Amino acid sequence: MILLAVALIPFGVMAQEVKSPDGNVVVKFYLDKTKPTYTLTYKGKTVCKPSHLGLTLAKDKHANNGDREQDLLEGFTVADTQTSTFDETWTPVWGQYKTVRNNYNELAVTLDQAKMNRKIVIRFRVYNEGMGFRYEFPQQKKLNYFIIKQENSEFAMAGDHMAWWIVGDYDTQENPGQTTRLSEIRNTIGKCLDRQPGDQVDGMSDAVTGNSSTTVFSETGVQTALQMKTDDGLYINIHEAACVNYATMHLNLDDRNMVFESALTPDAVGNMCYMQTPCNTPWRTVMVSDDARTMLSSYLIYNLNEPCKIEDTSWIHPTKYNGVWWEMIVGRSSWDYTDELPSVRLGETDFAKCKPNGRHLANNKDVMRYIDFAAANNLSEVLVEGWNIGWEDWANRWKYDVFDFQTPYPDFDIKMLNEYAHSKGVRLMMHHETSSSVTNYERYMDDAYSLMNKYGYDAVKSGYVGDIIPRGEHHYGQYMNNHYLHCVTEAAKHKIMVNAHEATRPTGLARTYPNLVGNESARGTEYEAFSGNKPDHTVVLPFTRLQGGPMDYTPGIFETDLSTWSQNKHKIHTTLVGQLADYLVMWGPLQMAADLPENYAKHDDAMQFIRDMAIDWDDSQYIDAEPGAYITVARKAKGTDNWFVGGKCNEAGHKVTVNFDFLEKGRKYECTIYADAKDAHYDTNPKAYVITKKVVKQGDKINMVEAPGGGFVMSVIAK
Amino acid sequence: MILLAVALIPFGVMAQEVKSPDGNVVVKFYLDKTKPTYTLTYKGKTVCKPSHLGLTLAKDKHANNGDREQDLLEGFTVADTQTSTFDETWTPVWGQYKTVRNNYNELAVTLDQAKMNRKIVIRFRVYNEGMGFRYEFPQQKKLNYFIIKQENSEFAMAGDHMAWWIVGDYDTQENPGQTTRLSEIRNTIGKCLDRQPGDQVDGMSDAVTGNSSTTVFSETGVQTALQMKTDDGLYINIHEAACVNYATMHLNLDDRNMVFESALTPDAVGNMCYMQTPCNTPWRTVMVSDDARTMLSSYLIYNLNEPCKIEDTSWIHPTKYNGVWWEMIVGRSSWDYTDELPSVRLGETDFAKCKPNGRHLANNKDVMRYIDFAAANNLSEVLVEGWNIGWEDWANRWKYDVFDFQTPYPDFDIKMLNEYAHSKGVRLMMHHETSSSVTNYERYMDDAYSLMNKYGYDAVKSGYVGDIIPRGEHHYGQYMNNHYLHCVTEAAKHKIMVNAHEATRPTGLARTYPNLVGNESARGTEYEAFSGNKPDHTVVLPFTRLQGGPMDYTPGIFETDLSTWSQNKHKIHTTLVGQLADYLVMWGPLQMAADLPENYAKHDDAMQFIRDMAIDWDDSQYIDAEPGAYITVARKAKGTDNWFVGGKCNEAGHKVTVNFDFLEKGRKYECTIYADAKDAHYDTNPKAYVITKKVVKQGDKINMVEAPGGGFVMSVIAK
Repeated sequence: MILLAVALIPFGVMAQEVKSPDGNVVVKFYLDKTKPTYTLTYKGKTVCKPSHLGLTLAKDKHANNGDREQDLLEGFTVADTQTSTFDETWTPVWGQYKTVRNNYNELAVTLDQAKMNRKIVIRFRVYNEGMGFRYEFPQQKKLNYFIIKQENSEFAMAGDHMAWWIVGDYDTQENPGQTTRLSEIRNTIGKCLDRQPGDQVDGMSDAVTGNSSTTVFSETGVQTALQMKTDDGLYINIHEAACVNYATMHLNLDDRNMVFESALTPDAVGNMCYMQTPCNTPWRTVMVSDDARTMLSSYLIYNLNEPCKIEDTSWIHPTKYNGVWWEMIVGRSSWDYTDELPSVRLGETDFAKCKPNGRHLANNKDVMRYIDFAAANNLSEVLVEGWNIGWEDWANRWKYDVFDFQTPYPDFDIKMLNEYAHSKGVRLMMHHETSSSVTNYERYMDDAYSLMNKYGYDAVKSGYVGDIIPRGEHHYGQYMNNHYLHCVTEAAKHKIMVNAHEATRPTGLARTYPNLVGNESARGTEYEAFSGNKPDHTVVLPFTRLQGGPMDYTPGIFETDLSTWSQNKHKIHTTLVGQLADYLVMWGPLQMAADLPENYAKHDDAMQFIRDMAIDWDDSQYIDAEPGAYITVARKAKGTDNWFVGGKCNEAGHKVTVNFDFLEKGRKYECTIYADAKDAHYDTNPKAYVITKKVVKQGDKINMVEAPGGGFVMSVIAK
Repeated sequence: MILLAVALIPFGVMAQEVKSPDGNVVVKFYLDKTKPTYTLTYKGKTVCKPSHLGLTLAKDKHANNGDREQDLLEGFTVADTQTSTFDETWTPVWGQYKTVRNNYNELAVTLDQAKMNRKIVIRFRVYNEGMGFRYEFPQQKKLNYFIIKQENSEFAMAGDHMAWWIVGDYDTQENPGQTTRLSEIRNTIGKCLDRQPGDQVDGMSDAVTGNSSTTVFSETGVQTALQMKTDDGLYINIHEAACVNYATMHLNLDDRNMVFESALTPDAVGNMCYMQTPCNTPWRTVMVSDDARTMLSSYLIYNLNEPCKIEDTSWIHPTKYNGVWWEMIVGRSSWDYTDELPSVRLGETDFAKCKPNGRHLANNKDVMRYIDFAAANNLSEVLVEGWNIGWEDWANRWKYDVFDFQTPYPDFDIKMLNEYAHSKGVRLMMHHETSSSVTNYERYMDDAYSLMNKYGYDAVKSGYVGDIIPRGEHHYGQYMNNHYLHCVTEAAKHKIMVNAHEATRPTGLARTYPNLVGNESARGTEYEAFSGNKPDHTVVLPFTRLQGGPMDYTPGIFETDLSTWSQNKHKIHTTLVGQLADYLVMWGPLQMAADLPENYAKHDDAMQFIRDMAIDWDDSQYIDAEPGAYITVARKAKGTDNWFVGGKCNEAGHKVTVNFDFLEKGRKYECTIYADAKDAHYDTNPKAYVITKKVVKQGDKINMVEAPGGGFVMSVIAK
């Protein structure tokens, strides 16, 4: 299946070529007859065979002359090509590095579609770690407004690669990750779609396991970021960057030819995107390397986003938090205040007259307990879910006015609790579950953010569970993508950080809007209480979900057997130390210590790591990595000489040598090692760990053994 | 085709009966086997033959046990019946009468659907002028949330009645009115739907003439209010009252049996309404009388609405206004500021740098001219359209952020102009064209209303031209009906009166929210500049469109030949005096003097009527009326002893004797009569009129002759 690059392009065809700064990545662009086409190679190996580019436009009843509905697929000639080089270094507000280099060579091809008297530009940016391209639509007489019916960008793979993928779905990203050859995607999805009523669903493993909102669109449809590995050792990752005013892209595989084609998320009437020139698509990215670590260290996605648009970012800060949450997820307590109500009407239902159910955790006493725990454990915020009225009938009723985001339950004294938190040096974190009733949320949003300002909240976790209202819209369509960004920009006016759950998977927008400090957008720790996450889950996600931005994964579950404190029979699919390791491999400026205070109390020695750990970095060095197998990383805490090292592995276990080359020469460091015990195992013996301390210096080495589903962490504190 | 009432109900079936207070209207309810069924008679004549009631529910993927998707059509037994009598007199904030009597007998039937273990209530209210019924859904274990797929309320007509109808459409109400037998509806609509490209459209007469947003759903679908007349002289009108949180109803005719069935407006995914118990449908109304005047004087629709929910209504006032509008409609000037821009981006496009097109009428100088005219002519407000940026590309582009409702064009000094107006005792009237980008409007709404408060606006004309965003929603669906009411209630918080154009036809909600002072919701005067309104138009609309609330019809066009001052070749299809008469037959608290100041200057003697006329009433007495033929009415100006009398007729002309019985005994009145000249004719001699004065007293009579397409008005001022 391996083609030589020289053979990719038909003899006699004139191709434009642009190389990465180091020369390893080569993009060639040419017209296949009149169709835009590109190839991509890495060190001479084929990454993308000839792949067509173009867009299909929708019929538009308002377009008198049909101009607006002629496809942008063929009939092109090359009118102009421009090449340039760019090299800048920028400083992220938070992230893996103190500074980021953005260095690429660019090729911009202007294409004339003479018959329609219009032109488009396809722009390629080629980095050492891959490339991005996008379509640009200059303002012009014959192309002012148009509707995209489908984007037809191809990514023609050179073989039947191994792939770490999640089923493509317009409404959920929470299906279990799959690891198969490309050729096995169809069967893996198909057998789920072919299920008959009563057939068993493996909630932890099947490709499609259901969700309160789900729309699978194809038997070979997968979402991005898609991580692949070729048989000759190339790591390839396809994703997108800067998805603004556009629908989220999926990939649909032609599995006879191993060609992916872009598959956008439609709106309620089946169109994808409504465009007004001048405008452009998001960047379509293909990262490539022969070193898996490059997939994790690359900032290609962020680099393809616009610089920060928020002038004063001083109020954006890394946040370790705990929350009134896991106890409800596991099922011991409730978001609801009462069991008496068949339904709720905002403004009419009088909760003060309802009998409390005794399981409502967002009450003054328990919230104060969580605040006390946060204050004692170096956590700066406390998330409280279930604080506001409406939870009795919030989900799956197609209800419009579910929440008002402002009225607390009778047992939640919002003023007192915020004052109490502030007196302890802690803030409460706001929670806005929208129930996907988006119109309703937008009506209340400004008041809701103002309420946050009034009481001193500076961060909100928002949620989009269930089918979207406006009805027929999908979670990842242009309409909703605009909504998510609207929330972020409105929140910025109120100096509020946003962590949106069930929202579209990120595409590096946090570079531009760094108050977007987190997203869910994948299967989080909560699933450990539902059906489980496979042990390899957090050594896949950094290659896939984290490409576009951090995930609010909410690790730190120390009591891995939920039945010890609840009716829930599930177990966590990592060791306790593996939970700690997730804080380092699943990097991000927002990290939750998700377990109950009483469970942390049982392992206070391990809790010391959470108290100590940094979550924002001046540097990150990946020691080793392999998708779905292991990731080991050393990170230097922002503004210090302290390092935190972590490794996480799949069910096979892993051995790794930590070489302390990264430490400052001549300096000594107090290293605390949190390791799986010898007989530890995520399933049979997850809470067996050993904590040791030693002094380390540059040049030292420590061999670490990670248990199946386990890992290790180290805090390396400069003396 | 006439059935005796006694034969309507099968022998041996137990029926519940409820009569109007005067005994003329009789509703019988019974179960046809297990299906709810009613009949309606008036003075023993059949109005509705046995008609089934019920609702079809939609499949709901979230309903685990299927409870929520079992139809509410049959399987019922009568569990309980309650009858009661109601009699109150209430005082409207504005309208035809000082006080309104609300007197009905009620029958509430509780129906058990034993198989589903749930119950519903059908409630009938029977008035002297007809009846209303609605479905009520009490909160109950087995009926908490449900989705209505269709409402199946039947209105079984007893014959092939004459009907004054407008084609049923989910997105426009602006098609020309039709006058046909029920049996001719199918052919009348069908021949429009069967048109081939290039076929001629008669824009003034055809049943379907197109609109920037239109969705015809059936060849026998019509909208309400539907006015009919039976061969034995009954006037029957079907409409609805209090359409809140529900989709607007159309009627679909089974023209073999002459049975109408309710046809709701669907949402983007084909469902009609999302319901949460306790709740109810709007009232379905059947008005009936053997006197056409009763159709016009009845307050049945308002009486079926909830009492006023606005505590302080002192800021709601009748408003005579002129506006920067007709000159744009006719085409001599523009809403746009510049012709230079292919498109606009809010916040980016700099209009100060654009070349003005010289036709932008909402400029300081012209607006001041209109203010001066208003001040000199007893008009209290001046509507200004085209004041705000965005008009260059506002329509039919599927554009999202079309307007911000806040930023004036460079030549409109919002502060100065409002101050200038106020110095003359006049207010400006705000204009919010949404371009049907509803999500965008809601985002800006609070700021837009606040801007109005800042500058002293107290009324807004809003518009919904084009297809709705959220896409797939229709103008008259539940989603949009909720939006329109949201605007009204939010505006009330700002003490703003609302006049929404292209919004759903009203259903008497102005009783509850009297700041809803007007709507368009039908073919207005603007069509005289497009393709024309038939001469009978304003002697049909009071029977149909005005049942649910006043129309901002914008009459008063004195220069009936548009070509005298513009490139527009159209003529108005009334006489000049007919335009004056529209102010009285098309009653409402908001009345526009729509023509240009210079056209009024040419007929200042006729303008005197507009200066003098009242637009809010203590009493209204209909002298004669026949749908589509003529309407004559005498109205007593609120808080005075002055009367204004008007008659309007169709192309046949009309003669009527005005008997001044209604005047106060012993008092003398100065009567100014504005009459069509003898040779006046709407088409050939429209501007021929005669103004005479005489003193009148109770008992006097004046014979009036109305020209074809003409009318007359009188101001009768107490001495």
